[in-house]
Amino acid sequence: MRINGRDYRTIWLADDGWSVVVIDQTRLPHFFEVQSLETMPAAAAAIRDMIVRGAPLIGATGAYGMALAMRQDASDGAVAEAFTVLDATRPTAVNLRWALERMRRRLLAHPPAERAAAAYAEAAAIADEDAAVCSDIGDHGLGLIALRAAKAPRDRPFQILTHCNAGWLATVDWGTALAPIYKAHRQGIPVHVWVDETRPRNQGASLTAWELAREGVPHTVIVDNAGGHLMQHGMVDMCIVGTDRTTRTGDVCNKIGTYLKALAASDNGVPFYVALPSSTIDWRIADGLSEIPIEERAEHEVTHLTGLTEAGVLQTVQLTPAGSRAVNYGFDVTPARLVTGLITERGVCAASEAGIRGLFPEAEQAA
Amino acid sequence: MRINGRDYRTIWLADDGWSVVVIDQTRLPHFFEVQSLETMPAAAAAIRDMIVRGAPLIGATGAYGMALAMRQDASDGAVAEAFTVLDATRPTAVNLRWALERMRRRLLAHPPAERAAAAYAEAAAIADEDAAVCSDIGDHGLGLIALRAAKAPRDRPFQILTHCNAGWLATVDWGTALAPIYKAHRQGIPVHVWVDETRPRNQGASLTAWELAREGVPHTVIVDNAGGHLMQHGMVDMCIVGTDRTTRTGDVCNKIGTYLKALAASDNGVPFYVALPSSTIDWRIADGLSEIPIEERAEHEVTHLTGLTEAGVLQTVQLTPAGSRAVNYGFDVTPARLVTGLITERGVCAASEAGIRGLFPEAEQAA
Repeated sequence: MRINGRDYRTIWLADDGWSVVVIDQTRLPHFFEVQSLETMPAAAAAIRDMIVRGAPLIGATGAYGMALAMRQDASDGAVAEAFTVLDATRPTAVNLRWALERMRRRLLAHPPAERAAAAYAEAAAIADEDAAVCSDIGDHGLGLIALRAAKAPRDRPFQILTHCNAGWLATVDWGTALAPIYKAHRQGIPVHVWVDETRPRNQGASLTAWELAREGVPHTVIVDNAGGHLMQHGMVDMCIVGTDRTTRTGDVCNKIGTYLKALAASDNGVPFYVALPSSTIDWRIADGLSEIPIEERAEHEVTHLTGLTEAGVLQTVQLTPAGSRAVNYGFDVTPARLVTGLITERGVCAASEAGIRGLFPEAEQAA
Repeated sequence: MRINGRDYRTIWLADDGWSVVVIDQTRLPHFFEVQSLETMPAAAAAIRDMIVRGAPLIGATGAYGMALAMRQDASDGAVAEAFTVLDATRPTAVNLRWALERMRRRLLAHPPAERAAAAYAEAAAIADEDAAVCSDIGDHGLGLIALRAAKAPRDRPFQILTHCNAGWLATVDWGTALAPIYKAHRQGIPVHVWVDETRPRNQGASLTAWELAREGVPHTVIVDNAGGHLMQHGMVDMCIVGTDRTTRTGDVCNKIGTYLKALAASDNGVPFYVALPSSTIDWRIADGLSEIPIEERAEHEVTHLTGLTEAGVLQTVQLTPAGSRAVNYGFDVTPARLVTGLITERGVCAASEAGIRGLFPEAEQAA
């Protein structure tokens, strides 16, 4: 990713070699600011307060959180405590747990004196792997876009709708759902992206639009209500979204509202793809609707909203009448039957147990 | 409707006997203020700027706009000009046109000297009829709710989801989609309403929530993305929405996003009802998707949003990054196949040409 002419990842080590720097995503799109994380609790808070968000980036931040913990106390108890604290920050994303388990396994294999160094090495490996995996997702998704764009009308760009932010801000680099779009754009395929604003936190309007603008990808922000109308009128050629947790049968749990877009895509014959690193697959579960816990977030995110005033300052305003309550479910589950295909680092497969096992034959042992 | 212990309609004549008073809906839910309309252009501006909105109330305001015009100039040319100006304010709602045509017919039957008085009488009749029609819609919808609530779980209220505002603020009194809810609540049936916030203008979060609170109806505001999840988990017993234009075949054109909720209702076996006065039926058209013009509104409504600061002032904030464009379609069309039934002033019917003709046998002549 390039911001103001400089290459970035979303998480990196500071020049001191140990403190962890992240982009403060709560300040985007109006202010580009970074935040330094120097303790495990600070890393946990960054995840919980959504300074960082997006399943893959949460995983990488959790891993670095373990490393920051080891710097201060590398005992078995500290490993356990860091795992517990970091794991409790966000309940829905499965690759936070995946990253923390990988870190714990690696750390407990070393004596305490070696753990800090091992933790930094493992966290760096997780981050590097995520960037590579996302690049591979981009290549496989690019193939799909190229194929379909070749058959689409020539008098307009290939139109892709996405929900929430599954771009490089959600990962270490490249993104999941947006990686194929960036690769297509860089290859010269004319694409245009419909960006769902994605209430309540507006990750689409704030993060996806900002990313796409940085990369120069043509895009238009729409309210979450609009996608069905666009699909009814032939204005969407493909949907690509991310997922925070995927069952081994291909159900996907993504930002609230994804299910509604999948229904509209199905009703209008628009292909609906989900891009994911295999670390988001939860091999233990088969039924997304009954088995994935849905995070319930603060009412305040629905009743209030923050934006930029004409004076250039961030201001929070209340939308609802005093006394009216709100409820805030963070995710919904899109059943596999509504998913055209899964775009993974190993290729594209059907959203089914057979499809996923075809690409990940070693998975059964992992379950 | 009762506000602060006093009975109101949404439009009435001031004590002077000629100027028209409306509730300024752009100031709700934070401020309850009225606005006086003294000229036809002021009435047109009130519709265009959404001081008043909702198909039936737009019709009544258009009618009073004709009356205000006649006060100043009752010539044939003035009738024609008022018709044209008022008709151009909002393109999607059909009963604005219906009310204006009724006014024009009535006015042209009188000599100019009698037109102002005739116009006020006819506008008052339109307003009175709308209140009566909405009350009848409420009674018929109440029957549906009572029937289904009797079969629903007893350990919780009967759960109804609605989109946008089709309450008394959208009509002269009672509302369309909310009328059955008010009648059920007043009859002691325990109801709870899920209120879609309804981006971009948030008529749900601001107007529906405010109305329901005034009437003491339990309700919870949700983002537009949430309804599918609620329906998947059995938390919605019925959907009731309004419509701005209905084809003679039962397609309904309502606030953008209605179609997505209808898809989710269909996917989850939740009954999806549309409440409407027959004045919203466009007898001329049979295919909602191809024949109803969809109003495209200002980009600004998507990129910016107004709410109340902690200091108690209304503040507009920008949500999107500088330079990202937005598009703003006001309505979408829900095909009749997704509609369980239409609740009209004459009863409930299937969303089909046969169903509608069964209740409105005189309609064919009107077409």
